[in-house]
Amino acid sequence: MAQTRSSSVQKGPTRQHSRTMDTFVSPIVESRRWLEGLSLADDLPLLNLSQAAPADPPPEGLRRAIAEAALNDDASHVYGAVLGQDALRAELARKMSDHYAAEISAQQVAITAGCNQAFAATIAAICKDGDQVILPTPWYFNHKMWLDMEGVETCPLPVGEAMLPCPDAAAELITDRTRAIVLVTPNNPCGVEYPDGLVRRFFDLARDRGLTLIVDETYRDFDSRDGAPHALFQVPDWSDTLIHLYSFSKAYRLTGHRLGAIAAHPDHLYEMEKFLDTVAICPAQLGQVGALWGLQNLDDWLAGERQELLNRRAAIETGFGPLAERGWKLLGCGAYFAYVEHPFSQHSEDLAKRLVRELGVMMLPGSMFTPKSETAGHRQFRIAFANVDEDGIQMLFDRLAGWHP
Amino acid sequence: MAQTRSSSVQKGPTRQHSRTMDTFVSPIVESRRWLEGLSLADDLPLLNLSQAAPADPPPEGLRRAIAEAALNDDASHVYGAVLGQDALRAELARKMSDHYAAEISAQQVAITAGCNQAFAATIAAICKDGDQVILPTPWYFNHKMWLDMEGVETCPLPVGEAMLPCPDAAAELITDRTRAIVLVTPNNPCGVEYPDGLVRRFFDLARDRGLTLIVDETYRDFDSRDGAPHALFQVPDWSDTLIHLYSFSKAYRLTGHRLGAIAAHPDHLYEMEKFLDTVAICPAQLGQVGALWGLQNLDDWLAGERQELLNRRAAIETGFGPLAERGWKLLGCGAYFAYVEHPFSQHSEDLAKRLVRELGVMMLPGSMFTPKSETAGHRQFRIAFANVDEDGIQMLFDRLAGWHP
Repeated sequence: MAQTRSSSVQKGPTRQHSRTMDTFVSPIVESRRWLEGLSLADDLPLLNLSQAAPADPPPEGLRRAIAEAALNDDASHVYGAVLGQDALRAELARKMSDHYAAEISAQQVAITAGCNQAFAATIAAICKDGDQVILPTPWYFNHKMWLDMEGVETCPLPVGEAMLPCPDAAAELITDRTRAIVLVTPNNPCGVEYPDGLVRRFFDLARDRGLTLIVDETYRDFDSRDGAPHALFQVPDWSDTLIHLYSFSKAYRLTGHRLGAIAAHPDHLYEMEKFLDTVAICPAQLGQVGALWGLQNLDDWLAGERQELLNRRAAIETGFGPLAERGWKLLGCGAYFAYVEHPFSQHSEDLAKRLVRELGVMMLPGSMFTPKSETAGHRQFRIAFANVDEDGIQMLFDRLAGWHP
Repeated sequence: MAQTRSSSVQKGPTRQHSRTMDTFVSPIVESRRWLEGLSLADDLPLLNLSQAAPADPPPEGLRRAIAEAALNDDASHVYGAVLGQDALRAELARKMSDHYAAEISAQQVAITAGCNQAFAATIAAICKDGDQVILPTPWYFNHKMWLDMEGVETCPLPVGEAMLPCPDAAAELITDRTRAIVLVTPNNPCGVEYPDGLVRRFFDLARDRGLTLIVDETYRDFDSRDGAPHALFQVPDWSDTLIHLYSFSKAYRLTGHRLGAIAAHPDHLYEMEKFLDTVAICPAQLGQVGALWGLQNLDDWLAGERQELLNRRAAIETGFGPLAERGWKLLGCGAYFAYVEHPFSQHSEDLAKRLVRELGVMMLPGSMFTPKSETAGHRQFRIAFANVDEDGIQMLFDRLAGWHP
């Protein structure tokens, strides 16, 4: 039941310009359409590496906790607080304080219906039409889409050799309309973990220039570094500069429940509450039950999940040799993603569609993460490897190594 | 853990102007703060008539359906389609076709994370900064808040004597920047059911002038009229003009699951999908399981719910006499709401706060549903009576009748 735009010759509603027309169709939605009518050979099962989503359900204990609430906790069916359940805010603040070796209070934490919504609320609370936000490229496409729809100009900051953005280059982009710099670490789509010192340089730049630093740490639970990945929360008055975004989706396999979070100054949360009340009213209650249960009970399980992801990452790094011999390059690898350069002359989007049909391999082209003006994306792919085990990774590499488009 | 804005003398984040600063704090959030530290006498239990939300949980069968999915349906924990589950879209289209005696297809229906989000997606898909939308007043405050945050100018259309808006007056407000007219029927906050002919006149006006008519029918399941409340879906090419909004929250007591819906032209849904992907990704899956089960199994139960609400409405109408003798007026009554005029000289917002402390009665003042320029709201209250039975209504009237502020 995917939507396809009616032919322009067909009668239809008046089409005035609108906010949504200022942006593109979600790459996830667009790429799903490549699968329509697809028929693959029996010996070529689809390897879907397009979306950063655990395919397996959450552990049984968490499922039981949700089922129990659905049956017996009346409050789980009625409206909750706009900024999330008090108990969940408090527990997340406590766990974050441990993880970042800092003091983060429940009043600095809010729950949202997914991390995309956390970003949307953040931009609505700090930007107006015509403002600018600096976004390293390759970017996370939903960030770009939201900025487009909000009338906020995106200032692309192309990453350097190690797929890391440069604070000095960011400083060059700042104007009197700049409101924020956005970092995603571990990065989507590049997989790289931003070094502590680099994140701190961006923080200092933002603070010195009166900007907000938005750090999206959706994938923090799969960082290869033990302990706090940065020390920003230890800075006194961190919340004058930093807005941190988080997702429960990946850690506890709760993508279908839509649960994210924000850590920010209560002044910012006061503003975001208006937005969240209007687009969501509250995060889904049963998802919050699951997230709280996860925070309270799944530390060991999550450590195992992280180790599994780290093993897959190692399998990619060690198994990449045959592809490298054929001219592929591994540009970044970590958390859920590998980001690669292909050796062919064709555009990555054309190749991505052919990969589905010819090899049964679905991965998003770099052009879906870069502005049209950046040709680097034409040679790149994102591999979202969270859903394939080490055998699947070997299968992927075997298929790619023998491909001559 | 309600948010209170830090004192302006306190250090805090840089406060540039933002989209959220163009609107007000949600009346629901604001009025909840009136309850903080409240201490009522034992013989004065709180009568909370402020929010249009069922306080009881959904029927046991629906709860069991959700619990069963949480335990055994893996798909209920992972991302779903942006526009909602195919089965739910198809079932809602089928039920709507029955209800409105029309042919509505699954491709014309989308599921959203609540009806507020349905409105937000609609405006994002048809409006840009600087456009205008006509909103009858008293309005539903989240509509006004979203228009404010989207940079869309609200053109208030004050209702007439019977709390009904006038199409001729609306026509006078249309400019070359007007994009839509919004109707809510049965109305929030006024409770009135818009006559079929009136809705049709608005539809014709919108069609003739190339506008969209947005009809929010969140409370349609509690309409006192049997059958279709209007014939718009029977108009060929209705979707060139009409966008219909719906909520599962009230019918099936699913407020905490966030489930709404849109019926619109697929061209509009194509645009809305960009917005919904970016702020929500998908509606919560377990809520969709519950909504589908409700559509398939709760017709008889819902008929009983409707009758109970109609009984309460009758109790308000028949029991209003003693209040009328003291100068109160019943301006509108239906679905979840009564809308009343008080006889006092004080402003309704001041009286609303005193009502909480002095009478243990919580209801929202008319000024929360009207522009500052409209003084009528100073004399009005909305009574959301879905959570009080006939005894509670009598208790409310007894308390109000004896009050001399």
